[in-house]
Amino acid sequence: MFRSHTCGELKMADVNNDVTLAGWVQTVRKFGSITFVDLRDRYGITQLLFNESLNEVLDKNPLGREFVLQVTGKVSERSSKNANIATGDIEIAVASFTILNKSITPPFTIQDDTDGGDELRMKYRFLDLRRNAVKKNLALRYAVGRSTRNYLHENNFMDIETPFLIKSTPEGARDFVVPSRMNAGQFYALPQSPQTFKQLLMVSGYDRYYQIVKCFRDEDLRADRQPEFTQIDCEMSFVEQEDILQMFEGLVRRIFKDVKNIEYTETIERMSWMDAMWTYGNDKPDIRFGMNLCNLKFPSHTFSEQQDIPELIDGADFKVFDEAETVVAIAVPGCANYSRKQTDELTEWVKRPQIGMKGLVFIKCNEDGTFKSSVDKFYTEDKLKAIATAANATAGDLILIVAGAEEKTRKAASDLRMYMGTTLGLRKADDYKLLWVLDFPLFEYAEEDNRWVARHHPFTSPKPSDIHTMINNDPKITNATEYLKHPYANIKANAYDMVLNGNEIGGGSIRIFQKELQQKMFAALGMSEEEQQHKFGFLLGAFEYGAPPHGGIAFGFDRLCAILGGSESIRDFIAFPKNNSGRDMMIDAPSTIDEKQFEELQIKLDLK
Amino acid sequence: MFRSHTCGELKMADVNNDVTLAGWVQTVRKFGSITFVDLRDRYGITQLLFNESLNEVLDKNPLGREFVLQVTGKVSERSSKNANIATGDIEIAVASFTILNKSITPPFTIQDDTDGGDELRMKYRFLDLRRNAVKKNLALRYAVGRSTRNYLHENNFMDIETPFLIKSTPEGARDFVVPSRMNAGQFYALPQSPQTFKQLLMVSGYDRYYQIVKCFRDEDLRADRQPEFTQIDCEMSFVEQEDILQMFEGLVRRIFKDVKNIEYTETIERMSWMDAMWTYGNDKPDIRFGMNLCNLKFPSHTFSEQQDIPELIDGADFKVFDEAETVVAIAVPGCANYSRKQTDELTEWVKRPQIGMKGLVFIKCNEDGTFKSSVDKFYTEDKLKAIATAANATAGDLILIVAGAEEKTRKAASDLRMYMGTTLGLRKADDYKLLWVLDFPLFEYAEEDNRWVARHHPFTSPKPSDIHTMINNDPKITNATEYLKHPYANIKANAYDMVLNGNEIGGGSIRIFQKELQQKMFAALGMSEEEQQHKFGFLLGAFEYGAPPHGGIAFGFDRLCAILGGSESIRDFIAFPKNNSGRDMMIDAPSTIDEKQFEELQIKLDLK
Repeated sequence: MFRSHTCGELKMADVNNDVTLAGWVQTVRKFGSITFVDLRDRYGITQLLFNESLNEVLDKNPLGREFVLQVTGKVSERSSKNANIATGDIEIAVASFTILNKSITPPFTIQDDTDGGDELRMKYRFLDLRRNAVKKNLALRYAVGRSTRNYLHENNFMDIETPFLIKSTPEGARDFVVPSRMNAGQFYALPQSPQTFKQLLMVSGYDRYYQIVKCFRDEDLRADRQPEFTQIDCEMSFVEQEDILQMFEGLVRRIFKDVKNIEYTETIERMSWMDAMWTYGNDKPDIRFGMNLCNLKFPSHTFSEQQDIPELIDGADFKVFDEAETVVAIAVPGCANYSRKQTDELTEWVKRPQIGMKGLVFIKCNEDGTFKSSVDKFYTEDKLKAIATAANATAGDLILIVAGAEEKTRKAASDLRMYMGTTLGLRKADDYKLLWVLDFPLFEYAEEDNRWVARHHPFTSPKPSDIHTMINNDPKITNATEYLKHPYANIKANAYDMVLNGNEIGGGSIRIFQKELQQKMFAALGMSEEEQQHKFGFLLGAFEYGAPPHGGIAFGFDRLCAILGGSESIRDFIAFPKNNSGRDMMIDAPSTIDEKQFEELQIKLDLK
Repeated sequence: MFRSHTCGELKMADVNNDVTLAGWVQTVRKFGSITFVDLRDRYGITQLLFNESLNEVLDKNPLGREFVLQVTGKVSERSSKNANIATGDIEIAVASFTILNKSITPPFTIQDDTDGGDELRMKYRFLDLRRNAVKKNLALRYAVGRSTRNYLHENNFMDIETPFLIKSTPEGARDFVVPSRMNAGQFYALPQSPQTFKQLLMVSGYDRYYQIVKCFRDEDLRADRQPEFTQIDCEMSFVEQEDILQMFEGLVRRIFKDVKNIEYTETIERMSWMDAMWTYGNDKPDIRFGMNLCNLKFPSHTFSEQQDIPELIDGADFKVFDEAETVVAIAVPGCANYSRKQTDELTEWVKRPQIGMKGLVFIKCNEDGTFKSSVDKFYTEDKLKAIATAANATAGDLILIVAGAEEKTRKAASDLRMYMGTTLGLRKADDYKLLWVLDFPLFEYAEEDNRWVARHHPFTSPKPSDIHTMINNDPKITNATEYLKHPYANIKANAYDMVLNGNEIGGGSIRIFQKELQQKMFAALGMSEEEQQHKFGFLLGAFEYGAPPHGGIAFGFDRLCAILGGSESIRDFIAFPKNNSGRDMMIDAPSTIDEKQFEELQIKLDLK
């Protein structure tokens, strides 16, 4: 061993002991005839003192940043202590040293506030990983994984590995495929998730399965997606939705305790998908703050259960509202005094292409009880007051209203709400609020093919009360314009998402375990019987041999770690991430392959 | 929850409690008006008693093997107890039941002694996994993983995930490749191991890394190899060989304790590669029994350090020995009384193509001190006695002698030794003997290219004392016939294998961490500077920025589990294994892909 101790552990109690340390040179500070060096390793930083007699040797063998150094010496009390670091009370009086390896000057500084840009740090990821900020992230990731494994172990879950070389069954996302040399002309696919395998394990009787496992999706990378990502993948047999919710609430509470030392004891709120869309315009709402949506107008079919309040804006001859499908308001607390410049900026914000609104209406609820709005021409003070009441606004609030097509407007209102929440500091990094979103629609309508697609995935069961609706109706949509009247449009899924601070961290469902129902589902998705057999024959077959009721959940491990680490970017929590073109900048992959490899695989390029 | 208890936990203390169980019907036994059902789940089997009043319902809803059943009833004491199972004292007096799912008749019985052949069980793996024998294997695998993680955690190792979509750098084994859609014409490769990434993590300062991770090799599958397999992959910084040996002896001792409840406290023997080859003819010897090789004749260059004993067989005019490069004997204890038939059988055994010897010479060391051999014509009793003494044979032993070309003969002697060890019951399943094999040659000679190949891999460091030999000599082999005289032929690797009962369960090395030495290594393997840069530029680059001394090890997780489970076949310890053609028989993969996938990937087939 090149060291007797790490750079993070020596304390006053070790004074006068002889020790050997090894690590990286963080800084070299020369003061006349003595030199201080901060030596860094994974565990911390220890100050080294090179006295006069060693200085001559040092001059001949100058130390540079990031040199790998081994020193032997005596632990001494420091004259000026540093309370900011664990080893701040002591230093090492160096007796001898060895330069184990040299370093050329790094392309950026190895510090929390590095001067390296994103690209440079990705290319030299092995140096970026030395920075404390990144090290903390990977340590947190390891702690989350460890906590997860311990909790699941204590609850009788078994880690069972599922294969990576499987079969391509493109449903939803695109598969990465792997040409088979031994079976020329055929391909494996990399799993988008171990979904069917974990279900087979349930059929096999392994009633509590988990895996922390890599998954692969060949998608165009939107911001903060990775072609390979990690899931905490779980499945249980003989359970209903409530059992799953409780088991995995327990997991997340345990992670909070183990990793953040937070006792998350409060009840975890549950909300239907419909309520989430109605109240927050979003199926993964951040419920740490209010500013709920006030739905001034909306197409009745989308929220048939909700009460309409059209009289508030009707009959004022304000064309923007009159012609809009949907009008949504939010009351921003304490912003009635926003200047013209500030409201103009908000208008510009909603007009950006990412939001796509045509404009923004505002009503200031003045402290004196009066109202001032951008639509004073159309609405009387009484009308404005009624809107303010509906929007739950109080004196001092600023009401913001967007109008337009249903989906876009609701999303815009949600985005605006989140933006104002962030602006007003209502989304505190150290405040965590969990939420279950339940009762999703089972199907979505795919206009291009005039058919149903599974909102979650084709293995999700309908609610028990909706099974007969699914079985007893033809999934075919005869009248495309009236698809919402098809009985399938109202079938609810036995599915659940766990949301943390406005991010979906996990999602799952109770699965279909009856062959006939699974076939009906495949048929609803437009799959012929031959296709069903080719792609999922093994699963349909397995369901014939005593499949138990089962369900499960998968957590996005990268995302969960990022949120717990107070970051919005998963890339910071992955040791070797890829960039937005799916490239590993450090190793320069993907890359070309040899002619011999093409020959052996019996494939060739067919570049357009 | 569909159950209040599992099928493995109810005991006398639960008698009179009302419980609900769910599981699979193992057997149905009807006795007049009552019916016994054995209900099975992952945890055990519980006997159910359906009384007269339920029998009518049962008649209308007959139960079959592997039906999924939920029952509610009272725990009762059995009249005739079954001491073989944990729940054998009780049964459930069923009050009501629900058939949760039916099953058609399984293609084989779900029992330890199943009637299903290999192929059938692979195709219906989800049923095979229900068998107790397989369940035990997966439980053991989980336990080995859990024990490993706990030990490594306690020793400050961090689980850090490395990427699966990397770069193809075919050295040794063939890569599986993955066409990139976003970077058309380019390919990722699946990792054969995380070798370079774990070394980069060392450069980054994560001084104790581990991962239980899938690796991929596209090789023609010899018996008991899988295209995807799992490694316990570890790396440490600031260590020398001794530190690694001790750390991972600790790991294996811990696994023995946690998984097998065996206190493996004895010292783990260490043996040089040279000694292993000399004494056992094999670099992964089973040292649970003796029968060491007696080297009667061998080419002096291969074992220059060993003493030659040619006078024993020379000058007898026995051409087989005289013309052979190598002659090796083993003394099989207590077999001097083997019949003619038995020695003939052994002769046939060594003549099989897998062994490939031309014949077998035997010497019987009779109890009365006389000798009887198949070469009495050539060797006097005195000569035979001298050979017996050299071979460490005593009265009652049977000496077996093979002769031929060096490598083949030594391997044949080793195989024969193992075969006789098995035949005589000397390789006991519950006897475990660990061994470190050390001091491997760094290079092997590749005749076809007249160059060196790395015996372990190109990142393994030479022994510290051999570094100067490597640096100061030209790796080029000028005279192919005299390659053994090249200084590189004698360079020893700083590498180690852990052997358990004749199986290599792990192997590793101290790595090269100096750029110049790494370049020299690549050059020795015939890699041009451009090729080095293209394939491993990132690693050579990383070595410029302060790479610490480091080394590591990887254990074959599948193999380790198989040996601990008392099996020679890793397939039994993998949930969803592939067959010898790399096919998953259950899901039928690999398979064809859609035209659209070819188009998007811009590749096409090029079948010969």
